[in-house]
Amino acid sequence: MAATARLALRARPLSRPNPGVAALVVHHGRVVARGWTRTGGRPHAEAEALAGLAPEVLAEATLYVTLEPCAHRSPRGPACADLIVAARPARVVVGQHDPDPRTSGAGLARLEAAGIATRLLDDPASAASLAGFLTRQRAGRPWVTLKLATSLDGCIALADGTSRWITGEIARAHVHAHRAQADAILVGGGTWRADAPRLDVRLPGLEARSPRRVILTRGPAPAGTTALPAPEAIAALEGVQYLYVEGGAQTAAAFLAADLIDELHLYRAPILIGDGRRSLGALGLTSLDAAHGRWHMTERRQLGSDHFEAYWRSRT
Amino acid sequence: MAATARLALRARPLSRPNPGVAALVVHHGRVVARGWTRTGGRPHAEAEALAGLAPEVLAEATLYVTLEPCAHRSPRGPACADLIVAARPARVVVGQHDPDPRTSGAGLARLEAAGIATRLLDDPASAASLAGFLTRQRAGRPWVTLKLATSLDGCIALADGTSRWITGEIARAHVHAHRAQADAILVGGGTWRADAPRLDVRLPGLEARSPRRVILTRGPAPAGTTALPAPEAIAALEGVQYLYVEGGAQTAAAFLAADLIDELHLYRAPILIGDGRRSLGALGLTSLDAAHGRWHMTERRQLGSDHFEAYWRSRT
Repeated sequence: MAATARLALRARPLSRPNPGVAALVVHHGRVVARGWTRTGGRPHAEAEALAGLAPEVLAEATLYVTLEPCAHRSPRGPACADLIVAARPARVVVGQHDPDPRTSGAGLARLEAAGIATRLLDDPASAASLAGFLTRQRAGRPWVTLKLATSLDGCIALADGTSRWITGEIARAHVHAHRAQADAILVGGGTWRADAPRLDVRLPGLEARSPRRVILTRGPAPAGTTALPAPEAIAALEGVQYLYVEGGAQTAAAFLAADLIDELHLYRAPILIGDGRRSLGALGLTSLDAAHGRWHMTERRQLGSDHFEAYWRSRT
Repeated sequence: MAATARLALRARPLSRPNPGVAALVVHHGRVVARGWTRTGGRPHAEAEALAGLAPEVLAEATLYVTLEPCAHRSPRGPACADLIVAARPARVVVGQHDPDPRTSGAGLARLEAAGIATRLLDDPASAASLAGFLTRQRAGRPWVTLKLATSLDGCIALADGTSRWITGEIARAHVHAHRAQADAILVGGGTWRADAPRLDVRLPGLEARSPRRVILTRGPAPAGTTALPAPEAIAALEGVQYLYVEGGAQTAAAFLAADLIDELHLYRAPILIGDGRRSLGALGLTSLDAAHGRWHMTERRQLGSDHFEAYWRSRT
């Protein structure tokens, strides 16, 4: 299941508007086929993985899939549950229940009715690989990642605004790779006007993956961007499963104060700045107790002389 | 040599005013004796390690010692070089040259004159274990460690000054263990007046290791403390090899601006504060280029939900 969940990252974000699902077929302990949701959402992962496997292989094979197979036919293709019933693998292991009301248990029920053994896990790795889709379904908004690039003492620029460069080339390339995994990037109107950031993906071969640009502003949208008046308005970002917020400090604080940050990406350079610009504005915190227990680290790595840490919001 | 350098940490800081030296005797691949500088500086590490070893063992043994054996007799005991010549180990391996003008090569010369094989390394682990002594000898001041305990966004307190607690119990115990390794603790006058910190060691069995308290202030010294008018005045702290600076922000910045911090201890809690108090005041930085290349990480560890990182000042 963990390998299937890792494979699902290949579908992000080009599977939009569909969830980025992955599937593996295992036959006598060997992976014999795999698939993930392709650009624009078709083919689905299960269709890719099952295509071309011989019936005698399938009869003794297990299909692993990160999300419950869909039960609804659409003009764009058949329901995966029907495809699987036709292919007849011995067993189907599912990482996560599909909350989409058109499936929501009906996919698994159809497999069981056809006599295929099924198992539904509540697999955290599958959930993580589907974070954007599941957050859309459950909370009606995208999964939101906040990026901060700071000195060891938490500054994002000198007092005069100079921020080129706090972090090194490798860390900056890592940011561009994360931009390529987002459906949209958001910055505040102040940052947009002050820095005129390009917010694109400058990695060889990935230039076309530059996401949609969104500006948090009460004013009109600058050309080529979408304007949002408040963090809560992200719900209206049609088709956006993954939103990447790049600041500045007031915008980051507004999202945090609204509890709309799911993931924090912290890049830290081994430098001290002192009286520079801070990474965050006011969060409205009234006690230290209220600050604790909200974040847990999920990843860390060295990027040249910089450190990267990812924290997820702890939600119960 | 690395094992000998680790052993030397046991001598810190009670060996003062002497350097915290360690010695190991290795005979046919086995450690047969060891020693480190005892409280108040005597016995020396070599005297401890060599005492009681049979001549036939010593004749085939190697003595490892972190610092060149002293060449000067004192009213408090014999010169280690003379002790070693009398004991006659086959070989002596030395981690660091002793810059004290009373030894400075004379210790090794005396061993060689007596026909004992010697080898002088420039061992980084030995140098690190002798940082306080070597900094005293070379720069005429103590080795200075700055401790900062912050949120992920670099705050040391809420805007109203509340700082209990940013970090957890384990991190705070780690701080107390480091206090016990210091000869003196320093805080700024403002922190002293605002927080009335005890600056003692509250670890079972180590209460007596609470270091001398020093206040950075132009005013008179509060009772039970020593006053220093400026960071540069640390040179005058008689007998202090290791100074532990605990803030606040202006004091930390004054030491950093004077380039008098050798080691940075950063405790980070997985919380965000936003518009709280910052860890550092102005450093007088005029460009980001000037901030880079000054610090490198030497240690990191998890302390409960907090992270500890040590950085050393990169000096060429």
